[in-house]
Amino acid sequence: MPTGPLAFESRDQHRAWLEAQSRLPQGFRVGTCAFEFTPAEAAKPGRMNLALVALDEPTPAFGALFTRNAFPGAPVIVGRQRLDAARLGAIVVNTKISNVGAPGGVEAAERVCAEAARLLGRSPGEVLPSSTGVIGWRLPVERMVEALPRAVSALQARSVLPAAQAIMTTDLYPKVRRADLGEGSIVGFAKGAGMVEPNLATMLVYLLTDLRVSREELRAALAESVEASFNLISVDSDTSTSDTVVLLSSGRRAGVEPGRFREALRAVCRELAGDVVRNGEGVRHVVRVRVAGATDAASARGVGKSVVNSPLVKTAVAGNDPNVGRLLAAIGKYACERGLPLDPERLRLRLGGETLFEGGAMRLDPAKEERLVAHLRAAELYASRATRDGIFKPPVDWPRHERCVELEVDLGQGSGAAEVLGADLTHEYVTENADYRS
Amino acid sequence: MPTGPLAFESRDQHRAWLEAQSRLPQGFRVGTCAFEFTPAEAAKPGRMNLALVALDEPTPAFGALFTRNAFPGAPVIVGRQRLDAARLGAIVVNTKISNVGAPGGVEAAERVCAEAARLLGRSPGEVLPSSTGVIGWRLPVERMVEALPRAVSALQARSVLPAAQAIMTTDLYPKVRRADLGEGSIVGFAKGAGMVEPNLATMLVYLLTDLRVSREELRAALAESVEASFNLISVDSDTSTSDTVVLLSSGRRAGVEPGRFREALRAVCRELAGDVVRNGEGVRHVVRVRVAGATDAASARGVGKSVVNSPLVKTAVAGNDPNVGRLLAAIGKYACERGLPLDPERLRLRLGGETLFEGGAMRLDPAKEERLVAHLRAAELYASRATRDGIFKPPVDWPRHERCVELEVDLGQGSGAAEVLGADLTHEYVTENADYRS
Repeated sequence: MPTGPLAFESRDQHRAWLEAQSRLPQGFRVGTCAFEFTPAEAAKPGRMNLALVALDEPTPAFGALFTRNAFPGAPVIVGRQRLDAARLGAIVVNTKISNVGAPGGVEAAERVCAEAARLLGRSPGEVLPSSTGVIGWRLPVERMVEALPRAVSALQARSVLPAAQAIMTTDLYPKVRRADLGEGSIVGFAKGAGMVEPNLATMLVYLLTDLRVSREELRAALAESVEASFNLISVDSDTSTSDTVVLLSSGRRAGVEPGRFREALRAVCRELAGDVVRNGEGVRHVVRVRVAGATDAASARGVGKSVVNSPLVKTAVAGNDPNVGRLLAAIGKYACERGLPLDPERLRLRLGGETLFEGGAMRLDPAKEERLVAHLRAAELYASRATRDGIFKPPVDWPRHERCVELEVDLGQGSGAAEVLGADLTHEYVTENADYRS
Repeated sequence: MPTGPLAFESRDQHRAWLEAQSRLPQGFRVGTCAFEFTPAEAAKPGRMNLALVALDEPTPAFGALFTRNAFPGAPVIVGRQRLDAARLGAIVVNTKISNVGAPGGVEAAERVCAEAARLLGRSPGEVLPSSTGVIGWRLPVERMVEALPRAVSALQARSVLPAAQAIMTTDLYPKVRRADLGEGSIVGFAKGAGMVEPNLATMLVYLLTDLRVSREELRAALAESVEASFNLISVDSDTSTSDTVVLLSSGRRAGVEPGRFREALRAVCRELAGDVVRNGEGVRHVVRVRVAGATDAASARGVGKSVVNSPLVKTAVAGNDPNVGRLLAAIGKYACERGLPLDPERLRLRLGGETLFEGGAMRLDPAKEERLVAHLRAAELYASRATRDGIFKPPVDWPRHERCVELEVDLGQGSGAAEVLGADLTHEYVTENADYRS
């Protein structure tokens, strides 16, 4: 995940960087549009964005991973069927309503695909639907069908940025990352701010490449990259019903050596995963936990997730408060749930390079506490400020830097390791989610 | 858990009820004291309370359950050894420092027990230590030894309330429940507001009875009662390193039929467990989830816990926002983690008696939404209000009522059932935990 020197001093600086990231690989076009409507289940009107990603020619080289949530949305159900299709030609994404658990959800998704296919001269089975938003509400299908021609006429081959922007909901800024290699590139964009603890796949992520690659190699590379990126993050421990990661190759550029392709894809995924956490709902600190010395990688990942999902660790980080005993409780909780035999004598904990726990006991003093506070403050993305009504809103809509709260856990038992990214729990998160729909 | 008609209109009314609850069973005395000190690990001074519960005669009829967290505190380590002792004569409890993961923690706990034993004319192995507070800091042993005589001279046989009050930390009010049966009574008091998702035992809970009961029967009744009460609650999903439930019988009154004793003990435990959630840190709504139709009780409990621990469900409840799709995501998340095959067609969800999901789809409309909002508002314990600095503090220090947000989940698969109590996630929780130690 991003460890680079990226830091931005202004929205304009971030925007210029984003535009450079967003150059489309060969063989793709992107178009968007938006409209107002009133959902059947609600009293108030809302706004829906549509984003269309179209290949100049349908491709056999595509793959996708979806949520493992037991109640997947209709677009995920349809998407799983599309994996068997000979070719994919387009993706149509909508915001505002996730089309999960809604009556007639699959039919609604298919109808939108069919209309997009008709406009693009494709068959309906070559279009992948994708939705994000409120669970349980019905898609305004007729309004979407009415709007689609505007997205089609907006199609252009220069930049993915309009789509990255259109799929935002509570995201503060678009998330785009690229890798240039050989004669082509891999460009990914993501949406994801809340309900983020992906299991197998995450939120909505679209990866486009013009590098020639077989369907088999593409799918293997995608699975490996997702495992090493989106499956290692958590904003709020809630696994969405809509998580989707798609990779499409237009095959317009010569392929590269498979190892290089995988490495570049993994880098793009890890950077995007970092972006998803950094721009998570209410996130003021990104927390990176490096777990080592576990009996296996799964235990290492479990310990890391337990730490980043502990509300008490999360709130302590939010308050720049090195209340580090809470780390011990979080690790011990996971161990007791899973029956892991942990030895306190072998456990080592570090925060910002400072030793917290060693030789079976905490090692704390007032001077160290001051250094820990300084480390937490340096990783803060912005200072928290409430309005007079007690509403907390982030004051910036760009990522100021990529610094993390750096935690190290060594269980001293084996060679299992994992690196997990999580976030703090803030007033901004509560403001966002206690009245997100209103 | 409490479903009774309890409601209080003022602090005084609650206090009068508490005093009646607090009458001590025969054979027990309670004394407390407090002092100021500066922890070795901190720059700022703090205040420690000591509470002493003494039996007139040491008893063989005692039992205790402790946290399953893999890093238990020193008092838990010592307490487990005490279970083998012939008799128990006293409990000494301190606040402010939990004596978990601190260098020399076990020796410190033993030294405090030895001094209490000396003052009470007991042997050190007859005293059980108990601590709550910051993890990783060292007990100020000499200051505690110095203060103990004051707690001893404060011993009285009328009321448990001074102890219930002394063990409070972030609790807003003392928690005491009683059952009168036969010639005697069972009186329990509890401390617990944050880091509450007990596993086997919870926080600090002390149950006193004068009813004669054998050690074996007492321990069996305790295990069963804890399983049906404290193991079914969660304030914030964090399992503490200090959870402790102790039951002592002075044997001063004739015993009752074992079934009646168990029933009364279970009722006291369930009421106290409800109190712990109701007075959880920042809790503005208690959420009761009744899960039915699971393949077994463990799955039912798991589904219930997944719902009450979902940050997005919790924040929606905090905002009186029936964003009920989040329930579906929370249930589906648990099912995918545990590999439970769930059938959406058989799933039924209800909130406040209103059907949310049935026949494979959500059933929502604007009129129903209004009724759901009314149900959420009626269960609110107090309205949220921020100061001008964005600090959120509960405006009341008594429980206004015992109404809950009532959720029903029917998985339609078997006869496994469970009733889980949880809470919302509020600005008050973040205020409490982002700078609890300062």
